[in-house]
Amino acid sequence: MAKEEQKAFVEHITPRDENFSQWYTDVVTQADLMDYTPVRGCMALKPYGYRIWELIQEDLDRRFKETGHENVAMPMLIPESLLQKEADHVEGFAPEVAWVTHGGNEKLQERLAVRPTSEVIFCTMFAKWVQSWRDLPLKYNQWCSVMRWEKSTRPFLRTSEFWWQEGHTIHATEQEAHEEALQMLEVYREFCEETLSIPVFSGRKTEKEKFAGARTTYSVEAMMQDGKALQAGTSHDFGTNFSEPFEIQFLDKDGQLKYCYETSWGVSTRLIGAIIMTHGDERGLRLPPKVAPYQAVIVPIAAHKEGVFEKAEEIYVSLKKAGVRVRIDDRDYVSPGWKFNEWELKGVPLRIEIGPRDIKNGVAMCARRDTNEKFTIKLDGIVESVKESLNDIQDNLYKIADEFKVSKTKDVFNMQELEEQVNVGYARAMWCGSRECEDLIKEKTSATTRNIPFDAEAIGDKCVCCGKDADMVIYFAKAY
Amino acid sequence: MAKEEQKAFVEHITPRDENFSQWYTDVVTQADLMDYTPVRGCMALKPYGYRIWELIQEDLDRRFKETGHENVAMPMLIPESLLQKEADHVEGFAPEVAWVTHGGNEKLQERLAVRPTSEVIFCTMFAKWVQSWRDLPLKYNQWCSVMRWEKSTRPFLRTSEFWWQEGHTIHATEQEAHEEALQMLEVYREFCEETLSIPVFSGRKTEKEKFAGARTTYSVEAMMQDGKALQAGTSHDFGTNFSEPFEIQFLDKDGQLKYCYETSWGVSTRLIGAIIMTHGDERGLRLPPKVAPYQAVIVPIAAHKEGVFEKAEEIYVSLKKAGVRVRIDDRDYVSPGWKFNEWELKGVPLRIEIGPRDIKNGVAMCARRDTNEKFTIKLDGIVESVKESLNDIQDNLYKIADEFKVSKTKDVFNMQELEEQVNVGYARAMWCGSRECEDLIKEKTSATTRNIPFDAEAIGDKCVCCGKDADMVIYFAKAY
Repeated sequence: MAKEEQKAFVEHITPRDENFSQWYTDVVTQADLMDYTPVRGCMALKPYGYRIWELIQEDLDRRFKETGHENVAMPMLIPESLLQKEADHVEGFAPEVAWVTHGGNEKLQERLAVRPTSEVIFCTMFAKWVQSWRDLPLKYNQWCSVMRWEKSTRPFLRTSEFWWQEGHTIHATEQEAHEEALQMLEVYREFCEETLSIPVFSGRKTEKEKFAGARTTYSVEAMMQDGKALQAGTSHDFGTNFSEPFEIQFLDKDGQLKYCYETSWGVSTRLIGAIIMTHGDERGLRLPPKVAPYQAVIVPIAAHKEGVFEKAEEIYVSLKKAGVRVRIDDRDYVSPGWKFNEWELKGVPLRIEIGPRDIKNGVAMCARRDTNEKFTIKLDGIVESVKESLNDIQDNLYKIADEFKVSKTKDVFNMQELEEQVNVGYARAMWCGSRECEDLIKEKTSATTRNIPFDAEAIGDKCVCCGKDADMVIYFAKAY
Repeated sequence: MAKEEQKAFVEHITPRDENFSQWYTDVVTQADLMDYTPVRGCMALKPYGYRIWELIQEDLDRRFKETGHENVAMPMLIPESLLQKEADHVEGFAPEVAWVTHGGNEKLQERLAVRPTSEVIFCTMFAKWVQSWRDLPLKYNQWCSVMRWEKSTRPFLRTSEFWWQEGHTIHATEQEAHEEALQMLEVYREFCEETLSIPVFSGRKTEKEKFAGARTTYSVEAMMQDGKALQAGTSHDFGTNFSEPFEIQFLDKDGQLKYCYETSWGVSTRLIGAIIMTHGDERGLRLPPKVAPYQAVIVPIAAHKEGVFEKAEEIYVSLKKAGVRVRIDDRDYVSPGWKFNEWELKGVPLRIEIGPRDIKNGVAMCARRDTNEKFTIKLDGIVESVKESLNDIQDNLYKIADEFKVSKTKDVFNMQELEEQVNVGYARAMWCGSRECEDLIKEKTSATTRNIPFDAEAIGDKCVCCGKDADMVIYFAKAY
């Protein structure tokens, strides 16, 4: 491939340090993950982007089922009166609801919300479905899209419609619901770290930042390469906040009628944004093998030469049989160099080149997307080598991201340090717990509280903002 | 279990021959597949019903991917102006559209339809995505729910919201699109017959019955136990009906700008209705093993006796390991007889009872849901025996349904015969092809044309209605 051709391909992507935001948009569109649509704020997920979502779904769905959850489907439209039953909830969501007012030619008697989230419809049905303690717990999940009428949107990070899962569970005791909320937070943490190679901060949200209607909200927070936070998943303990207005009651063993305790928890297509901004580089996407649509791509070199295509096909078949998601790029109208660039842009973890000389030597040339390292592997035993490389890449992407996260997280002890630190990453600080300090910090630094880590050792005893007594460790960061 | 208890359980279900429609509703609700919601015409799919849908999805999705299709996700809202671009299409769907008119507190400049189907949004995006013949074909599919504001609804058969898949493809040539439409019809036929054990009539719809905007619509039609037809899946050849108004053009090899040829095809949660009405009996559901949430249920007998629960657990583990979807019913507050009735109602293909005497004899007692046959199997080799039984049940349900279908399909040669036959099943007849005869038959018999079979041999040469020359064989039936 000519040097200038290569340049032309890569210059589609704005350098990260020049304009991170533009770099993100370039990668999203050039890697063919999604496209804008004529519907304001709504995106179309193209096959490559949707396939990542499918792989996320498969992995998470397995984890949900292993922890005893079942999938259901609820209506996408919700009567306005239901939304109004829980005061905080309606206040939080009403401003961003898309309203259905007409069915065919007839005006509806009551407006219907396109679901922004489904607590109230789950509650309505739970109230029908639960009578006795024997019916509990109900641990349900739904995969769907939801709609929140956003003023300004960015692909995957904030769109009016997005795809997600929402778990909704009800329990006989406060303790059990509390454990459920924490268990699902832990499922999210493990998923982010093991499957997406994204290290996270796991903890409790402040009163200000909790979900509209929740008693306690927990979150996993990731750090993007510009040092900003991205809330990757949330898990809510509702107590009886919803079960009381919705009258979700059960007859307990002791013959008493009691309210159920409830949780909900969710992650969304936002995670695709997190993958891009955690792992991407100047050449484009870098995908963790576990969610890569293609884990390896085979590029035949001098494919017209005898035996090359056959050997590529042979490797393809053996990898596929071994469960590797592999693609052979047999296009004859673009050069190998063009293909290299394109698959790098699309983040394929491993490239395998096979040409006449390689075949003669019984090897293939490989290139790792995470390190750009090139190396040869023996055709004999290629399946095992490829699998090993993929495992290495999965681990190495995590290691890189974790080192970055650690290096960009600093303890701060006064407002000046805090302000400086949130320009580059996360600030860990002591906080007195007052809403005033939280608001003031946001006003002065535009950083928000991310979460309060579990069992964190105090790093001081005075609030970073007001200087009064403080016993709570908390993370601050600017956020997406 | 006491006789009266058994009676009480089963009398929830209205006998089929007394009132088929009520029998259906009883089975749907008693088997815990779905529930009604406060949203008019919209249902909630409960775990047991949704699991059937998941198994349908898994099987179909594999077939779609094997035939080269990729999944995508499109917006659920569609601007009114897009819907109006194809005249027949808007005329067909506008009366049943749910309209979003407000986002938050602001009135929208243009109304947005909650998608009743997604042709127009796929077309809009295809027009952006296709430039050259090299980009073709694009073979996409989407799993989602759609909304059609129905006046009267029935669970699974006709609901305002339903879950489905919609395939949308574009091709460079008319021939290729034609072949795609027929290929997907064949995928549906195979799926219905192999996976759902439902035999179908495969053929072409008349001009009157085709999809709004299609050039040709093909369908697979199933026969329910009341002799009525249920359209189980459709596949549409659009020609350039949509690509012209939406300007989906590509530069062909010959340097000419040409319109793409398009198809779409879909099946929905309606299939769950088809399963119920094809296989159900007086005791409730009978599920084909391939889509049964539980293929076998183990009921311990005298579970308090030493070794019983352990043996049940042992069988459970070995079946689960072998990939059988199995459940052990260890409830201690209902009798075995109660459990038998409940799992029969829920259509579990195979029941395995294990008690102290069975264990001593090295056997388990089995009951097949399809035949009610009871038999013992040796614990030694139980996994193979169970798998064999499940295969038998899958095949036998097909055989029963196919015999019924054959016995309820008759050739008719005049209007009186036709009218009689459509009261009990399908009528096969010669038809002159005129809309007048089609309308008249519907008016007189309330039967509609189902489809025109491929390569059918003529059974006469005169139209069953007008007596004029006819060379087309066609099926008539009353339909859901």
